[in-house]
Amino acid sequence: MRIEAVSRDLGVSIVWRPFLLGPIFKKQGWSTSPFNFYPAKGRYMVRDMERQCERYGLPFTLPEPFPQQSLLAARIACRGRNEAWVGAFTRAVFMAEFGQGLDISDEGLLAAILLEVGAPAKQVLAEAHAPAAKDDLRAAVAEAEERGIFGAPSFVAPNGELFWGDDRLEIALEAVSETV
Amino acid sequence: MRIEAVSRDLGVSIVWRPFLLGPIFKKQGWSTSPFNFYPAKGRYMVRDMERQCERYGLPFTLPEPFPQQSLLAARIACRGRNEAWVGAFTRAVFMAEFGQGLDISDEGLLAAILLEVGAPAKQVLAEAHAPAAKDDLRAAVAEAEERGIFGAPSFVAPNGELFWGDDRLEIALEAVSETV
Repeated sequence: MRIEAVSRDLGVSIVWRPFLLGPIFKKQGWSTSPFNFYPAKGRYMVRDMERQCERYGLPFTLPEPFPQQSLLAARIACRGRNEAWVGAFTRAVFMAEFGQGLDISDEGLLAAILLEVGAPAKQVLAEAHAPAAKDDLRAAVAEAEERGIFGAPSFVAPNGELFWGDDRLEIALEAVSETV
Repeated sequence: MRIEAVSRDLGVSIVWRPFLLGPIFKKQGWSTSPFNFYPAKGRYMVRDMERQCERYGLPFTLPEPFPQQSLLAARIACRGRNEAWVGAFTRAVFMAEFGQGLDISDEGLLAAILLEVGAPAKQVLAEAHAPAAKDDLRAAVAEAEERGIFGAPSFVAPNGELFWGDDRLEIALEAVSETV
C-alpha cells in the first residue's frame, strides 16, 4: 500500500516483480500459511496487522478462508508487471482481500479492478489465462527463490541486498537512495 | 539492549520476565531455532541483524553453534528478575553471545558478568543451581505460553496486549504510555 508513495518521496524507482509465495512455502513443507499451523503466532500476527493498519489509516479484515487463492491475481499482476497500472492493481487486490475480506479468486472482481485502474480488462484476462502467463509466473517464482526470497513483500536492491516486509520498507529505500 | 533507555525516556516502568524459548519451540515441533532449518530465512535474519546492529551502533557476531545453551543464564536472570541488576545482566549476556560470539553456558563467564553488574555472584550462582530456580524458570515458561508468547523479546502491556520483537519496542511503549 505504501511503496509507490514512499519511493517517490525518496526518488527511488520501483520495478515490480509479482510472484507466488505458495510454491516457496510448499518446498519447505508448508501446505498453507505458517500463521495457520502456529496458532499463537497466527493470532499475534492478525492483531499486529490490525494495529499496523490502524497506524496507516487502512481498513483490515482477515479473509475467510485465509490465505485466499491468489493464482489468477498473480498471473494478471505478472502479465502487467511493466504496465503503469501494476501498482494500483496490486493495491486494489490487497484492499479487496485484506481490507474488505473479499474472494480474490473471483474473476468478476478482478475484471472490475482492472477496469478501475485503467487496464484493458478483457484482453489482460485472456492473456492471464494463456500458457505464456503461467510460464511467466513460474519463472517469476524461480527468480524469487534464486534471490533468497522466503516471504512477501520483499524488496531487492540493485546490488542484490534483500529486505523483507513492510517493517523494512524505509530501510530498503534509504539503502538504495544512499547508493544512487 | 534498548528497552531500559527507551522506556525511561517515555516514563514507562519495566517488569522483567526472563523465560526460555526452547521449550515453547519444542512444543510446536522445533528442536532448534527455525533460522537453522529454514536456510533462506536464516541467512536473511543474520543479514538483517547485522544491518540493525549497525544502525544501533552495536557489534554483531553470530555465535557458533547458534543458538547457544542459555539454560543457566536464564535461571540466573529469572532468579534476579526483581533485582536492580537484571537489565544490565541481560544486556551483558546478549553482548557476550551476539556481540562477541562467546559461549554463554560457561559458568566462569556468567560469574564475571554478575560481578561486573554488581550482583553477589557466588550466592546468585548457588541459588541458580538450586531446585527452586529450576521450578521458577519452568513457571516463567508456562506464564509466557499462557500470555501467547512465541518469540523473544516480547513485551506485554498491563491490559495483556502482546508486542513481539525489537521492531515493536517503540509501539509497545507508546501504547502503554498513552494509557497511563
